[in-house]
Amino acid sequence: MYGAQALIKTLVDSGVEVCFANPGTSEMHLVTAIDTVPGMRPVLGLFEGVVTGMADGYARVAGKPAATLLHLGPGLANGLANLHNARRAQTPVVNIVGDHATYHLQHDAPLASDIVGFARPVSAWVHTATSPESVGADAARAVHASMQAPGQVATLILPADVAWNEGGIPAPAVPVSGPAQAADAAVARVADAVRSGRKVGVLMRGGALKERGLLAAGRVATAGNVTLMADTFAPAVQTGAGRVPVTRLPYFAEQLVEFLAPLDVLVLVNTKPPVTFFAYPGRPSVGKADHTELLHLSHPHEDGAAALEALADALGVAGADPVTAPFRVDDTVGDKWDQFAIGRAVARHLPENSIVVSEGGTQGGGTSAALATGVPHDVLSLTGGSIGMGLPVATGAGVAAAGGQKVLCLQGDGGGMYTLQSLWTQARERLDVTTVIFANRSYGILQIELMRTGAGSGGEKAQSMLDLGNPELNWVDLARGMGVEATRATNVAEFEAAFAGAMGQRGPRLIEAYV
Amino acid sequence: MYGAQALIKTLVDSGVEVCFANPGTSEMHLVTAIDTVPGMRPVLGLFEGVVTGMADGYARVAGKPAATLLHLGPGLANGLANLHNARRAQTPVVNIVGDHATYHLQHDAPLASDIVGFARPVSAWVHTATSPESVGADAARAVHASMQAPGQVATLILPADVAWNEGGIPAPAVPVSGPAQAADAAVARVADAVRSGRKVGVLMRGGALKERGLLAAGRVATAGNVTLMADTFAPAVQTGAGRVPVTRLPYFAEQLVEFLAPLDVLVLVNTKPPVTFFAYPGRPSVGKADHTELLHLSHPHEDGAAALEALADALGVAGADPVTAPFRVDDTVGDKWDQFAIGRAVARHLPENSIVVSEGGTQGGGTSAALATGVPHDVLSLTGGSIGMGLPVATGAGVAAAGGQKVLCLQGDGGGMYTLQSLWTQARERLDVTTVIFANRSYGILQIELMRTGAGSGGEKAQSMLDLGNPELNWVDLARGMGVEATRATNVAEFEAAFAGAMGQRGPRLIEAYV
Repeated sequence: MYGAQALIKTLVDSGVEVCFANPGTSEMHLVTAIDTVPGMRPVLGLFEGVVTGMADGYARVAGKPAATLLHLGPGLANGLANLHNARRAQTPVVNIVGDHATYHLQHDAPLASDIVGFARPVSAWVHTATSPESVGADAARAVHASMQAPGQVATLILPADVAWNEGGIPAPAVPVSGPAQAADAAVARVADAVRSGRKVGVLMRGGALKERGLLAAGRVATAGNVTLMADTFAPAVQTGAGRVPVTRLPYFAEQLVEFLAPLDVLVLVNTKPPVTFFAYPGRPSVGKADHTELLHLSHPHEDGAAALEALADALGVAGADPVTAPFRVDDTVGDKWDQFAIGRAVARHLPENSIVVSEGGTQGGGTSAALATGVPHDVLSLTGGSIGMGLPVATGAGVAAAGGQKVLCLQGDGGGMYTLQSLWTQARERLDVTTVIFANRSYGILQIELMRTGAGSGGEKAQSMLDLGNPELNWVDLARGMGVEATRATNVAEFEAAFAGAMGQRGPRLIEAYV
Repeated sequence: MYGAQALIKTLVDSGVEVCFANPGTSEMHLVTAIDTVPGMRPVLGLFEGVVTGMADGYARVAGKPAATLLHLGPGLANGLANLHNARRAQTPVVNIVGDHATYHLQHDAPLASDIVGFARPVSAWVHTATSPESVGADAARAVHASMQAPGQVATLILPADVAWNEGGIPAPAVPVSGPAQAADAAVARVADAVRSGRKVGVLMRGGALKERGLLAAGRVATAGNVTLMADTFAPAVQTGAGRVPVTRLPYFAEQLVEFLAPLDVLVLVNTKPPVTFFAYPGRPSVGKADHTELLHLSHPHEDGAAALEALADALGVAGADPVTAPFRVDDTVGDKWDQFAIGRAVARHLPENSIVVSEGGTQGGGTSAALATGVPHDVLSLTGGSIGMGLPVATGAGVAAAGGQKVLCLQGDGGGMYTLQSLWTQARERLDVTTVIFANRSYGILQIELMRTGAGSGGEKAQSMLDLGNPELNWVDLARGMGVEATRATNVAEFEAAFAGAMGQRGPRLIEAYV
C-alpha cells in the first residue's frame, strides 16, 4: 500500500465519503488511490474556488467534512476565498494539498511556493506529511481537527513521494467528542434576565438555528419579553412554516444599531457581539448600545440547542407552545417585474425541505421575505463576504442532498461570475440544483455603498467599475456552454413558468431573471 | 485631497497608467480617486485571477507595472495564483488591497482576514498604509519595489479610513536605477570557456531573450562550439524570422537530462540551474550532468543583454553576423486535423510583431514549431505552472499593445476554464485579441503524467478526474455569453477560414479548435 492509499483509506474510515478535486501531476497517486480504495466518491471541479465552495456546501448539509484535492500552492490559493467563507461558516473541511516530492523542494521549481503560508490564514490546523508510514495518522488527525466544534478548516500537505512510496498504514478514526455543554452559571444568568421582564434579545448562530434549537428558543420566548434573532449571515437556518421564526440582524450599520437599541439585554448563543460588516465614516462599528447588557448563553464550540433547552427548563417552559410561522403564500402575480414578484413565484412552487443557497445580493431579499412563510426549508448564506460562494455551495449541497431535497441557488450576476464553472459540475453529476441568476447587470451593492461610504456618486470611470452591462452577460449561453439547460425570464409570467418547470423535473436548470 | 487620491496621484506620477480592478465597498474611495485624479485608466475584471493575470500580461508588454485594485483578503486570495505566475515571470506588479478601517479591524468582521499572510508568499514587498499623509510615500515605494530588477510583486494594503481621510500628500516618484552590470570576472571566465572550444550551452532568460540580447548571443555563438538555449518557461521571448533562434529546454525530466548531457559547460544568463518541473519516482530532479561545469554570466537582477554584448566584445565577435531564423511558412494544408495543421495555418496568417500568449498545454507545440520561422513575434509563456494565465495575460497584453500589435492567445480548454471571465473584459475594452481554444476535452497533460509518475493508467474514477468531455464544454456559447464573437472549427479548412478572418479584423474573437 502506498502512502496515498493509506491516506484515502483513513479518510474513508473516518467517515469522509466525498473528495472534491482538481488534481495535477503531483496528485496522480492520490487520483489512483481514490480509484483503488473503495468508498470515496471523486467530484471534479474545473476551478479550485468551485472545489472548496462545494466542500463547504456539502458539509453544511451532510454535517461532516468532505475532502478537497488541490494542486500545490497555487491550487490551494485559488480555493482560499471560499475557504475563507467556510472558515466564517465554521464548516469542517479537510484539504489535501499536493506538493513536490520532499527532495525536489530544494530546487525551487516553477510550481514551488510557500503552501503553509497560503494555508495558515484560513486553516485552524496545518500539517505537512513526512512519510507513508505516518500519513494515515495525519489524515485521521486532520479529520478530527476539522470536526473540532463548531467546525474548522484543516489542511494536510502531501509531498508527492510521501504519496507514491510504499509503506502506507491506514489509521483508525479519532473519536469526535462533539460540542461542550454551556456553563450552568451562564444558563442561570440568562434565566434571571428573562425572568426580570427586561427586554431581551437572543441572538443565535450555528446549531441553535436548526429545528431543535429554534423550538427551545421559541419556548424561552414565551417566558419573558424576548426577541429571537439570527446573525445576518448565519451559515444555515431552518425556516418556513411550522418553525419558530427569527429575525436576521439588518446589514447596514445604522439599521443594525437602531434594531438593537431597544434591548436591555443581548444574549449570545454560539455567536459573537454583532459588528457592522464594513466601517463607514462617522458611523459606529459595534451594533450593541452601551446601555445593553451582554450575556453569553453558549460559546460557538458549545451546544447551543442544548443550552436553549436547559434555559427553557430553568424557566419552566419546556412544554410551552412557541409561536411558529404560519403557512401563507401570496398568490398575487401582478405585472411588476421585481425581486418581490420573483420571491412570490418561488414561494408558490418550492418543494418542502428544499435547500436554498442565498447569494442574491441586492436582489435576494424578495425571496427571503416570501419564503419566511413558505414551506419548511433550509437557508445557507454567504458567511465571509467573499462573493462567489452561491454556485459552488449549491453544487456541494446537491452532492450531499442524497435524500432527494431540491437545491435552489439564488445568485447575483456579479457574484455568479466568480465561480460559474460550478455549473459544469452540476451537469456532470446530474445534480438536482436550480439556479436563479438575478441579472441586474451591476454590482448593485456597490452602487449603494458608493453613496454610503461618502465617496459620492462617481463620474464615468467610477460608474464603469460598478457596471456589468457593457457588454451584457448572457447567462443562458454561459449555462449551455457548460451543459446546463437554461432560460431567460424577462417578466413575471415567464419566470413563473420557468421556475415551475424546474421544480417539476430533476437535474440542473438555470433561470436568468433579467431584472 | 483624501488618502486614496494621494495614492492614485503618486502612482500616476510614478508612471503607472493602468489599474486592473475588482473593487468592493472598502475600495469605494479608490474608485472615486481614479475618477477624480487624471491619468489612470481603470480596467474592470469580473474575477481577481483575471485582474492579476492582466497586470502580468500588461507589464510583460509595457515594461512597467500596472496597479491592481483588490477587495480585502479574499479578493487578493482570488488573485494569488496569477501573482504566483507573475512572481515566477519576474513581472513588476503593484497590488493595492483594500482593508477594513484601522479601528474596525479589532472587531473581526466577516471579511477580516490575515491579508499580510495571504500576500507574503507572492510578494517581495508588503506594507500596510497607516495614514493619508504617508500613503503617497508608500505608493512611491511600492512602485519602486516592483521595479527592482528584474521585477517583482509589491503589495500595499490600504485601510478604508486611510483612503477616505483628508490630508493626503502625493509623493514624487522614486528613481529606478535599472539592472546591475554583470561582473567583469564572470564575463572573462565565460569568454575563456567559449574560446576553449569545449561544448558550451548558453541558457538565457529575462531581457537576454529580447532582440538585442539575442543578437549578442548569436554573435557569441560564432566564436566557439555554442548552443543557445532558453528556459522552458521563459516569461517572454522574441522569435521568428530574422531573429537569432534559441532552443527551449525540454519539459520532461529525461529529455531535459538527455538534452543537457553533451555539454562541457553550461552558462547561465539571468537564470538558475535547470531543474525538472516535477519530480518522478526514480528520475533526477536536476538537469545538468555532473561532468558539466556551471558558469554564471549574469544573475537575474543584472543586465543580461549587456553581459552578452560584453562577452561578444571579449571574444572579438562584436561585428559578427549571427545565424538567424529564415522566413519559411509551410503552405501544406492537408487533411489531417491536428495541432500541426493548426500551427501551419496560424503561421500563414499571423501579422508581424504579434504578441503570442502560450498556454496551449499538450496542443500548443504545433504552433510554436510552425512559428519558429514565421513572422517576427513575441511569445509570452506560463512561468509558474499555475494554469489559467493565458486568457488574462493576453487581455492585459491587449491593453498594453497600444501600438496596434495583434494579440494571439493559444489556450488549452482545461486551463481556459480557470479564468474564462477574461473574455468579458476583452469585449468591454474592445481589445484586439484572438483566442484559439484547443478543445481536446481533457486535462491532456495529466493523461501523460499519470503514466509517467508510475501511477498507472487509472480506472474509471481516475479517468473521470482527467476528462472534460462529460458534458462537453461549448466555447462558442461561453464566449458569446460574455460578448465575444466565436466560431467552432472541426477541420483544417474551417480553422484556417476562421483564423484568417480574425487576423483580418480588429477586436476580440474566439476560435474553438475542436481537436
